[in-house]
Amino acid sequence: MKFYVALFGFASLIFTVLLNAENVSLEKVSGSEWRTPKAESVIVMQLDSGRVVIELAPQFAPNHVANIKQLVSDGYFDGSSIIRSQDNYVVQWGDPEEGSPQARSIGKARSKLKVEFFGDNSELNFEPIESRDAYAAEVGFVDGFPVASDGKRAWLAHCYGMVGVSRGMGDDSGNGSGLYVVTGHAPRHLDRNVTLVGRVIDGMSLLSSLPRGTGDLGFFESAEEYIPIKSMKLATSLGNKPVSQQIMNTNSAAFKEHIAKRTTRSEEWFLEPTGKIELCNVGVPSR
Amino acid sequence: MKFYVALFGFASLIFTVLLNAENVSLEKVSGSEWRTPKAESVIVMQLDSGRVVIELAPQFAPNHVANIKQLVSDGYFDGSSIIRSQDNYVVQWGDPEEGSPQARSIGKARSKLKVEFFGDNSELNFEPIESRDAYAAEVGFVDGFPVASDGKRAWLAHCYGMVGVSRGMGDDSGNGSGLYVVTGHAPRHLDRNVTLVGRVIDGMSLLSSLPRGTGDLGFFESAEEYIPIKSMKLATSLGNKPVSQQIMNTNSAAFKEHIAKRTTRSEEWFLEPTGKIELCNVGVPSR
Repeated sequence: MKFYVALFGFASLIFTVLLNAENVSLEKVSGSEWRTPKAESVIVMQLDSGRVVIELAPQFAPNHVANIKQLVSDGYFDGSSIIRSQDNYVVQWGDPEEGSPQARSIGKARSKLKVEFFGDNSELNFEPIESRDAYAAEVGFVDGFPVASDGKRAWLAHCYGMVGVSRGMGDDSGNGSGLYVVTGHAPRHLDRNVTLVGRVIDGMSLLSSLPRGTGDLGFFESAEEYIPIKSMKLATSLGNKPVSQQIMNTNSAAFKEHIAKRTTRSEEWFLEPTGKIELCNVGVPSR
Repeated sequence: MKFYVALFGFASLIFTVLLNAENVSLEKVSGSEWRTPKAESVIVMQLDSGRVVIELAPQFAPNHVANIKQLVSDGYFDGSSIIRSQDNYVVQWGDPEEGSPQARSIGKARSKLKVEFFGDNSELNFEPIESRDAYAAEVGFVDGFPVASDGKRAWLAHCYGMVGVSRGMGDDSGNGSGLYVVTGHAPRHLDRNVTLVGRVIDGMSLLSSLPRGTGDLGFFESAEEYIPIKSMKLATSLGNKPVSQQIMNTNSAAFKEHIAKRTTRSEEWFLEPTGKIELCNVGVPSR
């Protein structure tokens, strides 16, 4: 076991402590404090390397989510490509020919959709956290999604793993046929400027570890570099048990405890815990 | 040029505008507003895939920087390995046998160093930025490094690309023979808990796009998965013109303009610029 000793020896203890603390916390959580995402709000992207599971957020972007589900059920993304991987920013996918005469048809989907940022506050399960945010008066979670708020309106925040809709110059120039996911430090300046539609709940590292594109903005410079998307499917089309991930309920006592642990960092390893937390550093446990 | 048109068509305009704005800004910058890092504070890691250039921060961690330079000049890291790649967190390297009887010798380097967090404020070129930070009273930059401060003491902040020293349980259990770099959303809870020693100023994507380790905490589970480090060398040992990167002077008017542009986002593409900025989203331009 020399190998194991070496790994967790001297230099590597640093994060072991963290992991253990988190495991203990999760074991204590009762079954009712986890939820299985509704299959009708889940899409599965199949890559050669594995599958990426995305939970959609119709609470915030109902028209975009409906359009994306239409595109997905029509097979729009099957055989499309990841065309961009910009370091510390985003991975983007869609039809590489979009905008050209060879572009694939979007079928029954709508070609233009007005941006959608704000949920209906009276219907949102907004769970604020104590944090001084650089961008918004208040931050927290709604149904597992990181959210910012000005006290009146709440919107999804560009944390790691959030999925958004590429758009052009106008506020109705996106339709969901081009999508991106945040793979770097949270680009929160994009909040309320691009429509976010969901979050990757499994398979994130398949996207974040892709080679970076060498073109401007991380676009791949030749078609040979594109990463093929075998298919994108609605979970409802995938048979009996389409969604195996469970996400911690962000309105649960367990999630409050998770936040408290991430804030106080009472593990012995920490010399001077900050006692602070930032929205995109909270993380939503899954199992 | 169908290919080009498709790439920058409809769905992809999103970030083109940003890039152009930044380019214009950089072109206007006069030569004196750039600095070339001092060769004695630069180390170069050679991987099979290319080179990673790290600028050290002796202003904050003089003992650790001296120890790392000792290790590097003794060839300690030559033939060592990247042993960990944890998604949205860190990449870590060093001697995989560390802690075992087969561990390589650290030679004349010191085996234990007390953590070093705080620069000598009277000597730091601290340039604060206007930002409401989740973790610290004040944030800004010192000589190109992101820094947080409580008004009395200033310390390096765990932004993307920052390099730190792995340590075990005690506050003197690190020595620089194990190093890590931040490859995900800024883990600012590590500020003032681990000694930061510098920043990757070139080649960052060679580290951030590595496959993720499948072991606990992203450690690679077998030696075959390790990424070999051919060498780590002091730039002073690399001949005539060892450092080609120039970094924008973070005390310059050009940098102030850079921050202002990143804050106001006055490009036409933005619908509702936040008018806010966060420390790790500023970025330090290089060329």
